[in-house]
Formats: sequence, structure tokens, C-alpha cells
Amino acid sequence: MKSVYCSIITIGDELLIGQTIDTNSAWIAQQLNTIGIWVKRRVAVGDVKQDILQALNQESEQSDLIIITGGLGPTADDITKPLLCEYFGGTLIQNKEILEHVTNIFTIRKRPMLEVNLKQAMVPDNCTVLFNEVGTAAGMWFEKNNKVFISLPGVPFEMQHIIRERALTKLKNYFTTPVILHRTLVTSGEGESFLANRLIEFEATLPAYIKLAYLPKLGIVKLRLTASDIEAIEIDSYFNELKIILANIAVADTDIELEEAIYKLLIERNETLSIAESCTGGQLCARITSIKGSSAMFKGGYVPYSIDSKVNVLGVNRKTIEQDDVVSEAVVIEMAEQCRTQMNSTYALSVSGHLEKQQGETIVWIGLAMEGKTLAKKMNVFYDREKNNVFVTTNALNLLRQFILQD
Amino acid sequence: MKSVYCSIITIGDELLIGQTIDTNSAWIAQQLNTIGIWVKRRVAVGDVKQDILQALNQESEQSDLIIITGGLGPTADDITKPLLCEYFGGTLIQNKEILEHVTNIFTIRKRPMLEVNLKQAMVPDNCTVLFNEVGTAAGMWFEKNNKVFISLPGVPFEMQHIIRERALTKLKNYFTTPVILHRTLVTSGEGESFLANRLIEFEATLPAYIKLAYLPKLGIVKLRLTASDIEAIEIDSYFNELKIILANIAVADTDIELEEAIYKLLIERNETLSIAESCTGGQLCARITSIKGSSAMFKGGYVPYSIDSKVNVLGVNRKTIEQDDVVSEAVVIEMAEQCRTQMNSTYALSVSGHLEKQQGETIVWIGLAMEGKTLAKKMNVFYDREKNNVFVTTNALNLLRQFILQD
Repeated sequence: MKSVYCSIITIGDELLIGQTIDTNSAWIAQQLNTIGIWVKRRVAVGDVKQDILQALNQESEQSDLIIITGGLGPTADDITKPLLCEYFGGTLIQNKEILEHVTNIFTIRKRPMLEVNLKQAMVPDNCTVLFNEVGTAAGMWFEKNNKVFISLPGVPFEMQHIIRERALTKLKNYFTTPVILHRTLVTSGEGESFLANRLIEFEATLPAYIKLAYLPKLGIVKLRLTASDIEAIEIDSYFNELKIILANIAVADTDIELEEAIYKLLIERNETLSIAESCTGGQLCARITSIKGSSAMFKGGYVPYSIDSKVNVLGVNRKTIEQDDVVSEAVVIEMAEQCRTQMNSTYALSVSGHLEKQQGETIVWIGLAMEGKTLAKKMNVFYDREKNNVFVTTNALNLLRQFILQD
Repeated sequence: MKSVYCSIITIGDELLIGQTIDTNSAWIAQQLNTIGIWVKRRVAVGDVKQDILQALNQESEQSDLIIITGGLGPTADDITKPLLCEYFGGTLIQNKEILEHVTNIFTIRKRPMLEVNLKQAMVPDNCTVLFNEVGTAAGMWFEKNNKVFISLPGVPFEMQHIIRERALTKLKNYFTTPVILHRTLVTSGEGESFLANRLIEFEATLPAYIKLAYLPKLGIVKLRLTASDIEAIEIDSYFNELKIILANIAVADTDIELEEAIYKLLIERNETLSIAESCTGGQLCARITSIKGSSAMFKGGYVPYSIDSKVNVLGVNRKTIEQDDVVSEAVVIEMAEQCRTQMNSTYALSVSGHLEKQQGETIVWIGLAMEGKTLAKKMNVFYDREKNNVFVTTNALNLLRQFILQD
């Protein structure tokens, strides 16, 4: 079976001058992978007619599917729609269904309807409209020389809606695609090169049609096996072997984040969590509450950023801070214990430390408390403020996960 | 003066299957812009030799500078270095300085040095090494047919270090670049199309060499004027005009985030802030504490996610919740007042609401308190959980900013 390849073209000066980070391409690639389409190339070009045309020509030479995002908004710097119309040899016509829908949106939101908004209802007469229920810019499906071109708005949730609700089924029917399988093992605690060394023998046994990739993030390495062949059914036995080799550092055997693993664990056990975080400034709470349904296991948190708030609000003993320093084992233990009592949760997690370089070592303490048991761990941090925050929250969540499992 | 164009090539299957979001390209583009280099195209390709070679050929045909990131890590799936060696006709040799540095890193971190780590000290003999002080993968500078090629590791903080400390000065000396000026006005409160309508006359007066772009994010629209010509000195008078037209919704006249604007305001006024946030789950605290030095104005926060924690920990009256609902004006006012008293801050900001679709309206209440004055505002939210969180925190921060300014 022939592989089906896709190129993603993102349009917009804001991507090229670095004012916007492209999260759309990654999301689109994930969705296409589920139906067996590989993204071969991603290209970003500015709002320049010649550059867009060149990208369309180049990408259609090597891919079967070309997805174009961006450049469909209502403002004057958007040139994509007229250009597509020209490229595919069509004429812009008013689409009644879209017009009605756009008018309706403005009525509901009690906003005046403007001339530029009316333009949103104009589409090329030679495309199939991919109707956008959640916004004003429609998706468009073109076919030319046996290639499919899909044009989508750049606003992520509108783009996602159109892909999910309109494009995927149409693509599945249009292309015949081979099986692509991914298996991802999430690990925490060892670096990329250390892991690679542990896996030398394992890698040597892998057949050519199964690929192993290392995907490191701060505090996490994801190991991904990929197979695109019909024989790929063996992938599961290799994956099981991988899980056994790395059992001591494995966090999850599906591609989920640590916070999701903790959420599942606590829901399963019918237990709850609270958090008191100082230097991480809200990131731990934010990661936990990013999970839909987290209110069933998360009681609440403190961000006691000042010493006064640690003492007056959270109830840490001022003497402990004076004797042992605000970044110390004793303080994070008190923070976790106070937090757990006041929030009335099964477990409490606490953090106090420095995220920016100090004289001597730059350290962070992580504390944990449950009924009759506490634990604290010291960490050295090496990166900048932002990276240290991610590194610390990831390590804190992993320590919490182990603490729960040892219970 | 001839414009200098750059293509950024990112290498890695993880970018194409959507497991990693490319934040590097945006950062690189920002840095290059400061020295007058434009990013013309960004291309992402997989760990496939032919695809990388094709990208190198295609991009060097149209750009003066080609920056390649990724594919330099110590694991087996990295093929970039040997490929570059072949492409530029060099031989891999051991670099003593890098070897010493890599050995040193492993000694300090008390980690065993592995065979794969030694490979990091091998570099092509025809490149200039861009020394990487913060990691093990060196940057490499090649020249071919008057084009410059820079190869960098994909790990963001290592890549950033090499660009900042090694590449920028070298690039400034190599290329003669024209002046590029950006002026950015940050606004909050009106959507893109509404703004565009207000600016029709203004846009008509803009000369061809000054471009206006609309950069919408949830709750924010940034308006950017860009000029790349020597006559661009006029950009400031157009920018002043823009500021006057949009005075009622302008947040900042430099490209900063709302949290930074608030930080500056409070430091200037020698005032402090505390936060009690329920549905936003830590994101408000996290945005404020993302600012370096925020401990000078941020006392601390609560994330009272459950009703019990709102009552027992924050001190909201249970009767108020029972009478008015947990998402109500009365509750956010009590949350802000209690928070302000307990944290002993000049201002307190509070949030309680739903981020996921409810029957009827989906609403969020935002509360504010200062000495002798409170304010509350109801918001309707329309997006998904994640987007609603960003939308609400942005609006809450803007309301806080206005509250401080009216004081």
C-alpha cells in the first residue's frame, strides 16, 4: 500500500517574525496520524503572494495532501482567499449558509455586523465548503491533479473543529492509507543519553520497520516505537520488552502527561490532593487543574509567595523559617502538613526554593504529607527561571506519583 | 541595501508527528529581527536523509542564511551531524575543548560518562564551532557559495544560548542589514474585526513601506506597525496616531504581556497584589509569578478549588454560597476581600466560574478589592476549557489593571 504524505503550509508574517508560536501543525499531524497519513514537511511562509504560490507548487510536487492554515481572518492583511481562488481558477461567490451563520453569531454575541464580516461568506465556487460552526471563517476543500488541498483558519479551536468534524472523514474516504502504529512509554528520572545506553541491546534487536525515538522534555523522556507496516503487529511485543527494561522509571505506557497519570491514580483510589507551592508560583496547581474533571480529586492550593503568607496564611512556624531557612526540609514538611490539614486532603504536595541562580547551589525542596507519613527531597536546578519551573513541577509531580504508589 | 533573508529548517520526526511543538523558530525569528534579518521561510522535515538534503538545497536557493535546529542529540536517531559533514565535504574530528567541557559537565552532575556522550565532541573539520557552554551539543557554522549555514541543537535553552552568545555577533559582522522597525500596541477589550473597522481611515493613510498587522490572541489584539526602509523613521508619528485612536483599549505601547504591565504598575506605585482563583486553577498566579522579580509585588495566592476550601481556608461565608451560588457577585467580592485581608496586600483579585459548558449561560465572575472599594464583573465564556482559562485570566488581569489605574 502506498503511503499518503501531507505537507502543512502555515501562512502569516506573525509566524515568521516570531510573534506567534505554531501549535496548529503539531495538532494537525497528530490527527492525520490517527488515519494513517504522514506529515512529510511543514512550511511557514509570510503574507506574500509569490511565497505562498511557490509553497503551493513545491509542496504539491511531493505530497498528496496539502493543508494550508491561516490568512482567512477578516482583516486587511489577509490575502489567502483571493489567492486560492486564482490558483484553482474559481470565482468568489456568496454562500448563503455561511452568511446566515455569521449573521447569527453576531446577533447572539450582541455585536454589530461589519462590512469585513460579510466578506467571510464569500467562497470560491470550485471548492467544497467545510462548514465552520464555531467561527466565521469557513474551511475549503480543493482538488487539483489528484491532490487534495484544504484551507483552514489559523485560530486553533476553529481549525480543530473543522478538521475533527469535517475533514477527517472526508480524507479517510478519499485516501487508502496503511496502518501506522505508535506506542509511547513515558519515563521520568533518567536523561536521554543514559537511557540510550540502557537500550543499546534492545535497539539492536529492533527490525528495520520499527523505529525507536527519544523525545526528551525537562524531567521527562518519552520513548516512542513507530511502525508503518502491516507486519507491525509485533510492535506490542517489543513495547512490552521496553516496559520491562525500564520498569523502574516508567510513568505511563500511553502518551499522557504526569498530571493525567496522577489524576487517574487518585480517581481510581478515591483519594484527594492539595498543593502548597511557593517558587513554582501556581504552575503545579495549574497543571493539575488543566485536567478535565480534576475537581473530583483536587481540593485546592496555596501559593504562599512571601514569608508572611507562609506564616500567617498557611500556618508555617516562623521559628522554623528563621532556624532552617525558608528553603529547607523542615519548611516544606510543615507546608505539606499544614496544607493537608487545612484542605482536608489525602495527600499534600509542597515546594519551596529558588528558581534563579543563587550564590553556591541553587536548590529547591519538595515536601509530601499523608496520614502518618511525610517525605522531603532536595533538588539542584541548573536552567533559567522558566525552565527550572517546568523541571521542578515535573519532578514534584513524579515524586508525588511515587509517594502515592508506595502508600 | 539588499535585504538579508533566512530560512529555518527544523529536523525531527517528533515535529512531524506532532509530539513536539516548535517554539524554537519563533524565538530565532525574534532574535534575527533585532539585527535586521528577515525569516522568509520555515521548514520542518523528519529524520530522513533525503528530505534533509532536499531542504538544504531548496532553502539555500532562496535564502542567504540557513539555520538548522535539531538532530544533534546523543541518541541513535540523530543523523544530522554526519549528513552535514558530507554535505559540506568535511571529516569528523575530535574537538579537545568540547571533550573537556562534556567530561566536566558529567563530573559536576555526578553522572557516568558514556560512549554516546563522547560522540558529542566530534565535529566536522570545515566548520567553525559555536561553543555550547550550557550543554553537550556544539553549534556549527558553515559557509558555502556565500551562504551561511548554522546548525544548532534542538533543546531550546541550549539553542538560545548559542544564538545569543555566539551567533548574533558573528552574523552582524558577516551581513550588512537594513533597518527594520516594529512598533506594537497591545489592546484588550475589542475583537479583530471591530478594530479593523475603527482603523479603516488610519490604514488608508499608511504609506506602502509601513505595514499594519493584527495579531489576535484570546482577549488581546496586538497591532504591529513594521517598516523596513530607511524612511521608516516616520513610523513613530503613525504609531502615536494609532495610540490616540485606540486610547480607550490600549494596554501597553511595547510588546509586553498584561502581567508585565501590571508588575511595572505596582512596582512604580509601591503597591502589592494577592489572588484567590477558583476555576482558573492557578493560571493567574502562574502568569504573575512568571515575571522575574514578582515577589516584590505579589504576596501570594489561594486556589480554593472546592467549596469547602472556599469556606474553611479562604473564609467565604457558607451562607453566601448557598444563597447566591458559588459563581456569583457576592462570592467573588467576599473572596477578594478575604484574600486581601489575609494576604495583607493593596489589591486582591478573585475568580469563580465555570470553564465548561453549562446548561444556559456559561459564566465566570471576577472580583476586585482594595481599601474601601470593591468591584465585580460577570463574563460569558464561549470556548473550550483551555481557551476559556486563557480568555478569563487575560480579562481578569485587564480588569485589575483598570482598577489600579482608576485608584
